[in-house]
Amino acid sequence: MIAQIISTGDEVLLGDIVDTNAAFLSANLKNLGIQVKGIHVVGDDVDAIVTTIEQVSYNTEICIVTGGLGPTSDDLTAFACSKAVNDSLELKEDAMNSMKSFFKKRGFELTKENEKQAFLPTKSSMIINNYGTAPGFHIKVHDCLFFFLPGVPSEMKLMFNNEVAKILKEKFDLNLNILIERLTVFGLGESKVGWLLRDFNKQFPSLRLGFRAAFPVIEVKIVNSEVVKNDDKVNSLMSLAKNWVIDHLENMVVSKRGWSIAKEVGYLLASQKKTLAIAESCTGGLISNMITDVAGSSDYFLFTGVTYTNDAKIKILGVNEQTIIDHGAVHEQTALEMALGVKKTIDADYGISTTGIAGPGGGTKEKPVGMVCIGVAGPSKVDARTFQFSFDDRNKHKMIFAMTALELLRRDLVALSSS
Amino acid sequence: MIAQIISTGDEVLLGDIVDTNAAFLSANLKNLGIQVKGIHVVGDDVDAIVTTIEQVSYNTEICIVTGGLGPTSDDLTAFACSKAVNDSLELKEDAMNSMKSFFKKRGFELTKENEKQAFLPTKSSMIINNYGTAPGFHIKVHDCLFFFLPGVPSEMKLMFNNEVAKILKEKFDLNLNILIERLTVFGLGESKVGWLLRDFNKQFPSLRLGFRAAFPVIEVKIVNSEVVKNDDKVNSLMSLAKNWVIDHLENMVVSKRGWSIAKEVGYLLASQKKTLAIAESCTGGLISNMITDVAGSSDYFLFTGVTYTNDAKIKILGVNEQTIIDHGAVHEQTALEMALGVKKTIDADYGISTTGIAGPGGGTKEKPVGMVCIGVAGPSKVDARTFQFSFDDRNKHKMIFAMTALELLRRDLVALSSS
Repeated sequence: MIAQIISTGDEVLLGDIVDTNAAFLSANLKNLGIQVKGIHVVGDDVDAIVTTIEQVSYNTEICIVTGGLGPTSDDLTAFACSKAVNDSLELKEDAMNSMKSFFKKRGFELTKENEKQAFLPTKSSMIINNYGTAPGFHIKVHDCLFFFLPGVPSEMKLMFNNEVAKILKEKFDLNLNILIERLTVFGLGESKVGWLLRDFNKQFPSLRLGFRAAFPVIEVKIVNSEVVKNDDKVNSLMSLAKNWVIDHLENMVVSKRGWSIAKEVGYLLASQKKTLAIAESCTGGLISNMITDVAGSSDYFLFTGVTYTNDAKIKILGVNEQTIIDHGAVHEQTALEMALGVKKTIDADYGISTTGIAGPGGGTKEKPVGMVCIGVAGPSKVDARTFQFSFDDRNKHKMIFAMTALELLRRDLVALSSS
Repeated sequence: MIAQIISTGDEVLLGDIVDTNAAFLSANLKNLGIQVKGIHVVGDDVDAIVTTIEQVSYNTEICIVTGGLGPTSDDLTAFACSKAVNDSLELKEDAMNSMKSFFKKRGFELTKENEKQAFLPTKSSMIINNYGTAPGFHIKVHDCLFFFLPGVPSEMKLMFNNEVAKILKEKFDLNLNILIERLTVFGLGESKVGWLLRDFNKQFPSLRLGFRAAFPVIEVKIVNSEVVKNDDKVNSLMSLAKNWVIDHLENMVVSKRGWSIAKEVGYLLASQKKTLAIAESCTGGLISNMITDVAGSSDYFLFTGVTYTNDAKIKILGVNEQTIIDHGAVHEQTALEMALGVKKTIDADYGISTTGIAGPGGGTKEKPVGMVCIGVAGPSKVDARTFQFSFDDRNKHKMIFAMTALELLRRDLVALSSS
């Protein structure tokens, strides 16, 4: 089954926004066993939309069009569609009613501008939009079934998942499972990951690897690219492949289920009934923010002190003033005392700390930008280590410092849970 | 001047990655006065690439192609290009030398796989890549000048800015200024912003508005869409338009230069020589992280206490235990004592605080998910207020809580600086 995607809108064409809709649709069509063969971006231009609809309609079974269904004068997609099929627009009662009920729920009144959105090609069927004002519709153009959806990502995604997927499954008898395994990798570049897994296709010709780099982690996906029913044979093949990938990634897989390091850390702390306190300097609250992004983190997270000044390190965390005088703020001994101090201050089981230089300023020859000292203090083990990164970017430094601290803690927690 | 963009790669077509390259290229071509009329995504498929190159070459002056220049077997773009122009590939000395010097600098050895990357169409000219291994090239196809660049965004962007833009300016005598003004808006939805500015086009027909929503702020861009030299007349028109937009946005413009609220707060603190301490509960370190994302924040930021437990609020911030017993942790009185407490603890000029319920759990009838109390303690004024949001999303709640706290502080700082 082959599909194509048309994204409309000057804002996409002009680069004002990134076209995330197409990627969402591609990925979700793939999950239905439908392969996308082309993505086209056209502006708010009736002729261009008509031409593209016609071109696509001759060599594709399914096409999803997003954008241009709004109330304003540059929303031209429904009109362009009617031109492409030599049809006219008519006021669709069901579309009008769905808009009325949406407005009523929100306590707004329907304006004259909005009424335009209920005018759809006569031969089309309305697709309800419970999440916004613009109804969608589907219509046959030559042999291709076209779905027209609004461009607002949140509305489009819900309409695709709740309405379009259902229609596709009914019309095309799609009923399949595509299995995906996700692994999170930290500490290797994307090209290195690709290189380490270069023999995967030889080993598992029926499976496919996907990579997604979200600095500083790489998500590796194992996808069974053939459309098959979910059965034991496939499951055991997926599990073999997963172990093969883990074995080849040099101990750099931080989550075997595609979780973030912070979520893995949280899971380990919660299951070991341990608590965490954090002392941050150069990471400025980022570690704490990542830990508290995980729902339920209040079960194990107690306190973070973001101590940007020496004074705060001494006063709040109890770092020895002489340590800072002797070694400076960026030093393993300071990191150690920060981790121990924050753990003690709030009586936590684990304390972790960062002190370093995120840049762009503040670096010296001995302590250059990108250097960080990380302390981990646990119930039975205390350690501090120095790392040197070089990214030319303050935020990337903060991120890699924070991730490294969480990964050191995660390794300690894993070692303890398996000992 | 008209351009088109071709993004190649199965990973884009399959939705594994979002095509940010096309948006970057569109926006940057526009800044050169070149308008993008079409964006095409094709997979790693020689025939599809050849067909697309041919189609584009007949009705466009400039085309940028990204992706498929790597060392592996699915990198087919150079070969496809040579087919499209009935050319063959040859080993280009300058491409080989640039790769050798790149590898030498990094201390790596050139592999056999990499040598493939130096094979380019005979009629093409190499575009140097100082940021990665794959050289680019440019070549005429019919009347259209094609630029082929690697798909890795960081390499592609630098090559576009440093090499391609230069070639375009030389070949097409582009020498122009497009003026852009940016405003940051907080507290209004995108549709509301559009509605409030609906008469802009009537008032300023030669200018264009652009919107970019990055939750929870909206960036409004005023663009002079006509290609003109930067002169006084245009500048004063832009300034008129900017004031018109500010007047129509109901006091919700938080930065008149497109900065984040955190950066504006930092600028105001630094210029008033004031210091800041932060007490976070439900925002979990996010405010602190946003403040320290700004380079130079160590000039005014002293300390954050992320006090997730009542114990930490009492111990670290000196919140009165009785306050929590009487009112609970989520209360204006608690927020007030947190802000005052953190300010006093580290002797800062300003203290701000958040305590609320980000969800998904933890809500009650009296204190539902999405409720937050925010305290601001300044040199002469102390205040705490309650806000209720409802986003069904923990991270969105954290974000809007944090932004609201920073915005309350920003307004106090502005009031003080203008009094």
